[in-house]
Amino acid sequence: MRVVVALGGNALMQRGAPMTAQNQRVNVAMACTALAPIALEHELVISHGNGPQVGLLALQAAAYDDASAYPFDVLGAQTEGMIGYIIEQELGNRLPFERSIATILTMTEVDPADPAFTDPTKFVGPVYSHDEAHHLAALRGWVVKPDGEHWRRVVPSPKPQRIFEQRTIEALVARGTVVICAGGGGIPTMYLPGTRTLVGVEAVIDKDRASAVFARDLRADTLVIATDADAVYTGWGTPQQRAISIAHPDALAKMDFAAGSMGPKVEAAIEFTLGTGNDAVIGSLADLPELLAGTAGSRVSMAAKGVAYHALPTAVVQDETAIIT
Amino acid sequence: MRVVVALGGNALMQRGAPMTAQNQRVNVAMACTALAPIALEHELVISHGNGPQVGLLALQAAAYDDASAYPFDVLGAQTEGMIGYIIEQELGNRLPFERSIATILTMTEVDPADPAFTDPTKFVGPVYSHDEAHHLAALRGWVVKPDGEHWRRVVPSPKPQRIFEQRTIEALVARGTVVICAGGGGIPTMYLPGTRTLVGVEAVIDKDRASAVFARDLRADTLVIATDADAVYTGWGTPQQRAISIAHPDALAKMDFAAGSMGPKVEAAIEFTLGTGNDAVIGSLADLPELLAGTAGSRVSMAAKGVAYHALPTAVVQDETAIIT
Repeated sequence: MRVVVALGGNALMQRGAPMTAQNQRVNVAMACTALAPIALEHELVISHGNGPQVGLLALQAAAYDDASAYPFDVLGAQTEGMIGYIIEQELGNRLPFERSIATILTMTEVDPADPAFTDPTKFVGPVYSHDEAHHLAALRGWVVKPDGEHWRRVVPSPKPQRIFEQRTIEALVARGTVVICAGGGGIPTMYLPGTRTLVGVEAVIDKDRASAVFARDLRADTLVIATDADAVYTGWGTPQQRAISIAHPDALAKMDFAAGSMGPKVEAAIEFTLGTGNDAVIGSLADLPELLAGTAGSRVSMAAKGVAYHALPTAVVQDETAIIT
Repeated sequence: MRVVVALGGNALMQRGAPMTAQNQRVNVAMACTALAPIALEHELVISHGNGPQVGLLALQAAAYDDASAYPFDVLGAQTEGMIGYIIEQELGNRLPFERSIATILTMTEVDPADPAFTDPTKFVGPVYSHDEAHHLAALRGWVVKPDGEHWRRVVPSPKPQRIFEQRTIEALVARGTVVICAGGGGIPTMYLPGTRTLVGVEAVIDKDRASAVFARDLRADTLVIATDADAVYTGWGTPQQRAISIAHPDALAKMDFAAGSMGPKVEAAIEFTLGTGNDAVIGSLADLPELLAGTAGSRVSMAAKGVAYHALPTAVVQDETAIIT
């Protein structure tokens, strides 16, 4: 079986903890303990987020001088190296001696005509006062928007079209190499309109959407989106909250999820399942064997009928519109 | 023909220029203009230095806070991502549309018993006063040494033993992919003595020596070490200076070159040629076609007899101990 696992932010860094190299390593080590058994049994490709890491590198650069304040494509490339290295080393230490693992620098193509470029919405970096934010916007060419009572920089989050290194990744997977790629959704790049010149873009790409794109093109059997939550919930935070066990992509597409957090994961899972006919699963990395076995998390499947929910503690029950699968 | 080109620092950054992303890109673009014709004709693997980039990232991190002052292995991984990305993109823009190029994160094994660990000698980062240097040494566990009238941090520069991603690199080269790897000599790693646990090391690896190691293991036909100088000189800076045209590795090994600059390049070239029987060439990247054709630079070859020198302007003449080849 060919499995793609997209690691969420908390698999790499505990929220709020200082982002030291050691803290990152401890968290990655836990993720790799979950991933290693999968690598023993299946073809495995690992992607990962990079939001907090890019934020930190941007702050470091700005603290030093303005000249070295690198654009997002270059910062993204740095984090692909850093995070990829730590995953490669920690996973290697949990696999049979010198199992082949490769971290592939990944560029993702975006469309210059993507509407995200005319209306950037993704908050990045620290909060500022109104005056600071507008000063920095003028100085560095940023777009800034209010975020609650503060102001922050916003950048576009265009839709990933494809991964340039797709065939390289596929060739390595086919020969038994565990591949780490598409960190941070891949480095955002585009062809300058009317040319064959590829350039970096000041943007961020959703890593789950990028993972769905390359998992589809890899014809993966399963896409696992590993996150903080043990499943996708309806009525999250209300007394009526229920964990989805399995859902048909069409049924899931009719439901609403938080735009900034679960929404893109659900969209990515739907896109993968509709594009391949294969299942996507959203859940906690700690449950990885169960996510693959279909006994934990939320599975998006063409074989599902409507939406079914987990009962507490473990059984699956039917809701008013769904059929147990 | 399978060619490995090791790019020196000046191929990536002009000395003294501010290390902005744009300056890096301009320099890499020039290097890629030289590399592109080689990629059209031959199997090509590119390695590169990272000294100034690691230095800058370390300063950025230190300017922000102490918690995020990452060790050299992590900083090296960041620069492999950053520099690899810029090379991959700029080279791709100079090759036929979407020629396969891959940047492979590279870890290099070093020996924990390497004598470099007991006597670190490689200066890294900025200069400090005696007091500053010793304060930082106590604070961060650095070893510091005098460098002229200033003090600087020193780290070990152990001998590279092998590249962990060797087989991945070879598989990709064999299928026609241009591979970028072993940036900064590869991330220094070692097995903790008596274990199979691989860890990062606070060290730097000479990128030319690392390139010689993986070029040997790749059975490259030619190793090109691209540098500032158009050739290896004897009597450099004296009225007697002469550019070596071709030399047998044994003859070259008897000569003295500057320990910090040309010495390691000459050693790397000798090691590659003795290890493979194939030629290594040291010279300017701008002369790349001529370096490969044998009409520029300094060639290290088992076929050479003694040492022969370039005459001005172009011919090769025999010195008192050498035979024209």
